[in-house]
Amino acid sequence: MATATDNETRLFAKAQEARAAARQLGRLPTLVRDQALLNLARALEQDQVEVLHANRRDYQAAQADGMNQAMLDRLLLTPERLNGMARDVRSIAALPDPVGETIEATILDNGLRLEKRRVPLGVIASIYESRPNVTVDIAALCLKSGNACILRGGKEGLNSNAALVALIHRAIAAAGVPEAAVQFVDNPDRALVNTLLKMKEYISLLIPRGGAGLIRFVAEHATMPVVTGGIGVCHTYVDRAADLEMAARIIFNAKVQRPTVCNALDTVLVHAEVAPQCLPRIAAQLGEAGVELHCDHRALSILGPQPGAKVIPATKDDWGREFLSLTAAVKVVDSLDEALAHIETYGSGHSDAIITGDEGAAARFLDEVDSCAVYVNASTRFTDGAQFGLGAEVGISTQKFHARGPLGLRELTSYKWLVRGDGQVRA
Amino acid sequence: MATATDNETRLFAKAQEARAAARQLGRLPTLVRDQALLNLARALEQDQVEVLHANRRDYQAAQADGMNQAMLDRLLLTPERLNGMARDVRSIAALPDPVGETIEATILDNGLRLEKRRVPLGVIASIYESRPNVTVDIAALCLKSGNACILRGGKEGLNSNAALVALIHRAIAAAGVPEAAVQFVDNPDRALVNTLLKMKEYISLLIPRGGAGLIRFVAEHATMPVVTGGIGVCHTYVDRAADLEMAARIIFNAKVQRPTVCNALDTVLVHAEVAPQCLPRIAAQLGEAGVELHCDHRALSILGPQPGAKVIPATKDDWGREFLSLTAAVKVVDSLDEALAHIETYGSGHSDAIITGDEGAAARFLDEVDSCAVYVNASTRFTDGAQFGLGAEVGISTQKFHARGPLGLRELTSYKWLVRGDGQVRA
Repeated sequence: MATATDNETRLFAKAQEARAAARQLGRLPTLVRDQALLNLARALEQDQVEVLHANRRDYQAAQADGMNQAMLDRLLLTPERLNGMARDVRSIAALPDPVGETIEATILDNGLRLEKRRVPLGVIASIYESRPNVTVDIAALCLKSGNACILRGGKEGLNSNAALVALIHRAIAAAGVPEAAVQFVDNPDRALVNTLLKMKEYISLLIPRGGAGLIRFVAEHATMPVVTGGIGVCHTYVDRAADLEMAARIIFNAKVQRPTVCNALDTVLVHAEVAPQCLPRIAAQLGEAGVELHCDHRALSILGPQPGAKVIPATKDDWGREFLSLTAAVKVVDSLDEALAHIETYGSGHSDAIITGDEGAAARFLDEVDSCAVYVNASTRFTDGAQFGLGAEVGISTQKFHARGPLGLRELTSYKWLVRGDGQVRA
Repeated sequence: MATATDNETRLFAKAQEARAAARQLGRLPTLVRDQALLNLARALEQDQVEVLHANRRDYQAAQADGMNQAMLDRLLLTPERLNGMARDVRSIAALPDPVGETIEATILDNGLRLEKRRVPLGVIASIYESRPNVTVDIAALCLKSGNACILRGGKEGLNSNAALVALIHRAIAAAGVPEAAVQFVDNPDRALVNTLLKMKEYISLLIPRGGAGLIRFVAEHATMPVVTGGIGVCHTYVDRAADLEMAARIIFNAKVQRPTVCNALDTVLVHAEVAPQCLPRIAAQLGEAGVELHCDHRALSILGPQPGAKVIPATKDDWGREFLSLTAAVKVVDSLDEALAHIETYGSGHSDAIITGDEGAAARFLDEVDSCAVYVNASTRFTDGAQFGLGAEVGISTQKFHARGPLGLRELTSYKWLVRGDGQVRA
């Protein structure tokens, strides 16, 4: 059996190969990188047997191991899901190439021609849980943006990921893209994650995808830049000047349309003046969809026992909690200021909305809520790279450094300054 | 005497105040922040007595303590230097306000109006050596960009910094900007630097300014994002197709015009075909200015003993060394490829130049050198925020994440997504 040191040595070799491949990749023409993606899409549709077979082994082992149904579902690959992944890869191929784009160009007074040109970051590593689709997703986004990648997925998906990476390697090599541009950590040893987090000489950016625990661990221990996000404690505030029908419709959508994602609603704040008319209607609609409401005492006194609605008293842990399920916290506030203060205290800087017909209140909400996406009269569910017109996304950043909100291809790039002269020297 | 815990408690209180002030500051109108800067400029010109007195105490103590002349010079404030600082603050006030700028605006197909708006980062901390001008510089750039700041200068400048911060506080308060927006760590205890590096809940960005040791220490131990840079191992490559007169002129400028800064030349690479004509001329000019050349054996065999030139054999430590003095390394290479490989191995990603009349060679150099600024036929000394038209700069980033090259006001900002709808929900 390999020793820890052997495994680390192998990981360093992969990182070095990735770095060398990144330099080649960044210089390959757009057409070559796009052809690699198109090859990959076709392979995902046509060469499914080995991948599905590997996935079956992972699935059965995870099932025997007692993995819960939601996680098993994320692990599962089917012919339809592989076809869906192929479609996503084709969409990425069809996006404009961010690499080489001239961001700014000026001629200085001294005649120097200054150009700010977009370039890849280099090597992007991702640590994620047992969702094999992330393997293809990150690899495709990195290839398109000219970055090499190092993929470290959850151990329960090891066979699936290995089969997908083999397929990726064949597909990209056939287009002339070095296989080394996509590195796969095929050793499930957790100690190697710690090694990865120390490799700042090789890795330009680390993207953790998964639960809050993983993200926190990576953010605290990584030596290279990390894009953190994906934790969304999302508020929708119904202002005194709200259209109450609109408020109910938006809240229903934000909570129910897909409750397990980060931009789904967690807390409803309602102005006291409209709470008596508004809350029963919201509660009835949500109740029909099976949503449980954790209410502060004022909301509770308005709602009382609602037929069909699961209405219980909130505890203090309900404020600032990301439910990721058919549950929402509800609180009555006396003013916009109280709503803003609540969001400031309990929000996670992801997506928050105000429902109002009052332009002044809307402007204050937009100005003062310090979240990556702030909404007026719309569902927070729109915080998404595709919805925002960025094409694809690798995730949603709730940090302010480098990029905020949905991370598309551009957000996986840096730039350099090119300066062309004819002998200029500094006076 | 205060215990370590008391001091830490005080530092946390300052950080909390800064965070609260940052929220106010980001919402103040441009005019208010600009007035604060204009007040500060006037105070720097008119209220010099206390600052000069405090600086005299620092200077005499440092002198008695044996501080070297270069550092003493950096510590020294004079009426003229304070007037110069006032001019710089006025220039910053005159720059366009980055805060609130609409970076992008689109209307999505579903009618949502999407706006990407520039916002301040929040709280910026800076750790720097004993240069009191940095205190005013960072405070002014942060105020202009809507960020609160926490300043921790070197202990030898403590009295000067305290006097400058008192002056800053009076000036900004008179304009209606909270004094808490500029926090000063008046305790020279080194342990508090470590505390500062852990305060990621309060500090959005940390900017270390100073020597390589300080920057490395901060980059390794900070828990929040850090902008690193300022280390420049700058190469100028004289291609076979170079105009040799231009090459000599540019190399002289890049090395001699201000040798102590990060964008000054460190290594000259010369193509073997032109080395015999080119090197003696370069060596003679540099020799007259007192530059010592550390030459590889091929350069040495061409130059031989030069009258007036200090020419000695290079050691392997000379490659990749930032000289910050009238010294340069010289190497003869056989090809553009060898020059590119040398820069890849020994460069620091700061500023590198090619001198050539060959457009193909220029294009390859621009594409393949992975530095923040890459030059054709110009001096590397131009890598500078003011020279690049960014107005002022807080430093030069050699990292790829967030911002690369000169860091102006925009680079001290983030953005948020504002989404305005009329009831849109996600399908």
